[in-house]
Amino acid sequence: MSKLQPTACIIIIGNEILSGRTLDKNTQWLAEKLTGLGIALREVRVIPDVRERIIEAVQQLHPCYDYLFTTGGIGPTHDDITIDAIAACFGVKVILHPDAHETLKIHYGDQLNEARLKMAHVPEGASLIPNAVSAAPGFRIKNVYVMAGIPSVMQVMFDNIKGELKGGEPTKSITISAAVTEGIIAKELTQIQASYKEVEIGSYPFIKNGKLGVSIVLRGLDVGELEKVATEVKALLKRNGEVME
Amino acid sequence: MSKLQPTACIIIIGNEILSGRTLDKNTQWLAEKLTGLGIALREVRVIPDVRERIIEAVQQLHPCYDYLFTTGGIGPTHDDITIDAIAACFGVKVILHPDAHETLKIHYGDQLNEARLKMAHVPEGASLIPNAVSAAPGFRIKNVYVMAGIPSVMQVMFDNIKGELKGGEPTKSITISAAVTEGIIAKELTQIQASYKEVEIGSYPFIKNGKLGVSIVLRGLDVGELEKVATEVKALLKRNGEVME
Repeated sequence: MSKLQPTACIIIIGNEILSGRTLDKNTQWLAEKLTGLGIALREVRVIPDVRERIIEAVQQLHPCYDYLFTTGGIGPTHDDITIDAIAACFGVKVILHPDAHETLKIHYGDQLNEARLKMAHVPEGASLIPNAVSAAPGFRIKNVYVMAGIPSVMQVMFDNIKGELKGGEPTKSITISAAVTEGIIAKELTQIQASYKEVEIGSYPFIKNGKLGVSIVLRGLDVGELEKVATEVKALLKRNGEVME
Repeated sequence: MSKLQPTACIIIIGNEILSGRTLDKNTQWLAEKLTGLGIALREVRVIPDVRERIIEAVQQLHPCYDYLFTTGGIGPTHDDITIDAIAACFGVKVILHPDAHETLKIHYGDQLNEARLKMAHVPEGASLIPNAVSAAPGFRIKNVYVMAGIPSVMQVMFDNIKGELKGGEPTKSITISAAVTEGIIAKELTQIQASYKEVEIGSYPFIKNGKLGVSIVLRGLDVGELEKVATEVKALLKRNGEVME
């Protein structure tokens, strides 16, 4: 399936995620969008706001995937160090971007101080990612897209770049849930998986009202194949309990 | 701060997180617990249910941190491959653990089939992590704690191991929020940070009812120092807008 899809990785830069203060919702939002575009998200890393850690992660990961997205650390305060770190990754200087400067001048007027001006800086050679929510832009350098950590701002940035991402064949999926425990169907499910190599069959148990159930998620590129597998899985589940349609 | 604290890393094994189907809540739950125990969570990785990826991540990360926690992939179905992969990481066989076997016999009675018996297997030398929710245990091998992906099961497993984790001095934190934009206070906040090297000052902007605000999070080990910084930060915020107490 994935051979036909470009690949992606996300780096979440955020002490607030690692301390447990904040629940990271950016990963799921981006994951859904990337899946919809036919881009396979293959890895997510959450790392602290530490310059060396950002440099290490970006240098290690950007050659491994078609797209690398980062969130967090591009604001005006002392703990926003992503811009500098990304520039260091690629051995370039940080420069004041004239278009970003102009945007912030218009947005802040005479409230544009030194700290805010930091947000008009980008690594040399980067192109801007507009931000209609709070003006300060993100940027792209090579295959690295650097976005804000605030979900609403990250989302508007992603919406501005998604047109330039080259997606692949979108993954289709079918989910079938049932009041059945995994252990009862595991053997036959393994046989179904063995017969349909091009469909990825995921089995996700859940607990609802104190009872175990399972969601079988079928993912693949060929709707015809998916439907064949769905028919077999539904029959298997029905033989063992109640299917929730 | 962190010199006095053991360190940890989490590996989330889950295609369902990477596809966007499921919001990962295990990271935040574990992060809060670890923070409370005085253990510094330094990294989280989300990787797919792919044997080579699990082996690579565990081998790379377990020597870097005092504790490594994994979630996901220890159920009875074909896509549950964590047990085998962890055994391969450490070059040991997978064995049927007699205590786990006994537990599953009692739990399942004559419903204990081959697939379920898979959940009584662990890498040789591993010790069990009990699971009062659904019986099938997690396990520990060296500094790697292997837990379930279902949040309620992962939580009961973690509660069973937390007594054996050696915590450090717990981090204390104070959060002060205000209807103030970051850019106005950034310069003075940098000066405060420069005066108190032992307190980590994080600045987290948010958007509420369409208006920007900021939460300043102070984290450190010395409550006296934290309170000094809090007094200065509150005064700074009050000079620039409304502080939300």
